[in-house]
Amino acid sequence: MSDLPATVIIQEEGPREGFQIEGPIPTARKVELIDRLSDTGLKHIQVTSFVSPTRVPGTADAEQVVAGITRRPGVSYTGLWLNDKGLRRAIATERLDVRGGINLCASPTFLARNQNRTMQENLEAQRHMLQVYSQLGVEVNMGAVMAAFGCNFEGEISPATVVLLVGQLLDLASEAEVKLEYVAICDTMAWATPPSIERVIGAVREKWPELELSLHLHDTRGMAIADAWTGLQMGVRRFDAAVAGLGGCPFAAHKGAAGNICTEDLVLLCEEAGIRTGIDLENLLEVAHLAEDIVGHPLPGAVKTGGPLRKRSV
Amino acid sequence: MSDLPATVIIQEEGPREGFQIEGPIPTARKVELIDRLSDTGLKHIQVTSFVSPTRVPGTADAEQVVAGITRRPGVSYTGLWLNDKGLRRAIATERLDVRGGINLCASPTFLARNQNRTMQENLEAQRHMLQVYSQLGVEVNMGAVMAAFGCNFEGEISPATVVLLVGQLLDLASEAEVKLEYVAICDTMAWATPPSIERVIGAVREKWPELELSLHLHDTRGMAIADAWTGLQMGVRRFDAAVAGLGGCPFAAHKGAAGNICTEDLVLLCEEAGIRTGIDLENLLEVAHLAEDIVGHPLPGAVKTGGPLRKRSV
Repeated sequence: MSDLPATVIIQEEGPREGFQIEGPIPTARKVELIDRLSDTGLKHIQVTSFVSPTRVPGTADAEQVVAGITRRPGVSYTGLWLNDKGLRRAIATERLDVRGGINLCASPTFLARNQNRTMQENLEAQRHMLQVYSQLGVEVNMGAVMAAFGCNFEGEISPATVVLLVGQLLDLASEAEVKLEYVAICDTMAWATPPSIERVIGAVREKWPELELSLHLHDTRGMAIADAWTGLQMGVRRFDAAVAGLGGCPFAAHKGAAGNICTEDLVLLCEEAGIRTGIDLENLLEVAHLAEDIVGHPLPGAVKTGGPLRKRSV
Repeated sequence: MSDLPATVIIQEEGPREGFQIEGPIPTARKVELIDRLSDTGLKHIQVTSFVSPTRVPGTADAEQVVAGITRRPGVSYTGLWLNDKGLRRAIATERLDVRGGINLCASPTFLARNQNRTMQENLEAQRHMLQVYSQLGVEVNMGAVMAAFGCNFEGEISPATVVLLVGQLLDLASEAEVKLEYVAICDTMAWATPPSIERVIGAVREKWPELELSLHLHDTRGMAIADAWTGLQMGVRRFDAAVAGLGGCPFAAHKGAAGNICTEDLVLLCEEAGIRTGIDLENLLEVAHLAEDIVGHPLPGAVKTGGPLRKRSV
């Protein structure tokens, strides 16, 4: 009936996704959250982004955050960058697992608005980044397709477009003689639903049955857990997620509206399905409450409020 | 791959679920919400409950609400009751679609705490209600299993227990010479996850392949839409839901925490899957905003905040 994986890899992006829109938050509290996340069993934590402090004041302290965390052996700490300058800042910290990625976007309008590039210019920009990675000796491990399910400006994105872009990512990698460990299919604007997950993942799978895929999901329209379940049933075993649902949503009318898929809700789903996450849910729920304390308002994750599936004493 | 239905029946329970825990809310505003719901294409609306005004002050104005609504032809307006007295109050309004149901509970502890009955006493109470329905000439159309997936006091409920209780409901109906149109499988304490939906619905289906089932889901642990999708894939075509996610959650630390599955989020899911709901989503989203205005705080539904899947003007 389904192709559920035995284990999943959850890449925690709460600190990066959250701190870039919340705040201001003292650096020490960001470090506290990351250190607590390190103790939950999570093996991948994206801690900050190295982008313009003018455009994203919330991550202006990226270097201080990285300098402050206690690195736990076996946990990979990563950062995000959008260009050479950010990459060099990440490398300069000497405390991150710096591996490169290339990103294409399925919506020309979103790309133009967000990065002021055409599709062709973006392809060239990725080719340039591959050269930079090579020059700096940075291993390239992933590709990503942004806006893979739909776009608030263009509507639904066809699976054929996603297949085209995955092909371009693989061609770029091949040209640069690097191998992508996985390709992230990103629901940047929360258009995915279980049927569109089936269509898009299905189309990519049909063309590249052996290619490992990951899903980056947003819960803006309440579909993220159902989307993840659909992905799991199709054998997807790598997900980005954010503790407590950190990340917010730029369209939200009130703070606490859904942003990224919530890590602890995803962990509960996986564990109930017999899929090992390696994460201690009870511990993670405490960190989710800490995240709410740090941002100072309720966050959207459900299990931290509803409680895990355990008996209460009568 | 799946057994998706062509259409679904969504039974709106927002007014009843919401008003029993929110408030106080002026009767006129309850009537306003129900009248607006009547214009969305919903065909079943549960408008109030006829229970003790001491225990549930929020529905003390049940008769006034029913007297105030404008009944739209083709829409079935229902109420909830727990005993003969409530049933007689519902009948006396002469404005409701009064049809009877029988309910068993899969958790003895929950039953004892909530209704102060043993499993055997509850079975007798249902037998008594069937006699009352017969005496009052009320058609019986449904049975329900409460706490069908798990209980905060007993933990997970086995599918075999649910099968046993569905069998008891069918036996009771048969004894009373009535036919149940459907049996509601109710996740009273939000323990369901997609795998347990598969197990429980699967077990009942295996024994009674032709029996129509409905799902009553709570989103307290963020699983409701994924649960509904799993049910839809198994051919379930009847769901209870609450506009904007009205209903709240007794375990919630803050208002706005998830209660019932949200009607408009479920409608979006169905429509995206090509399943007809007969409901105008844009209209329903306006009613969801009205519901928030009436209760005076944010409600958990996601699509009312994130927006439907439509292009925005650039």
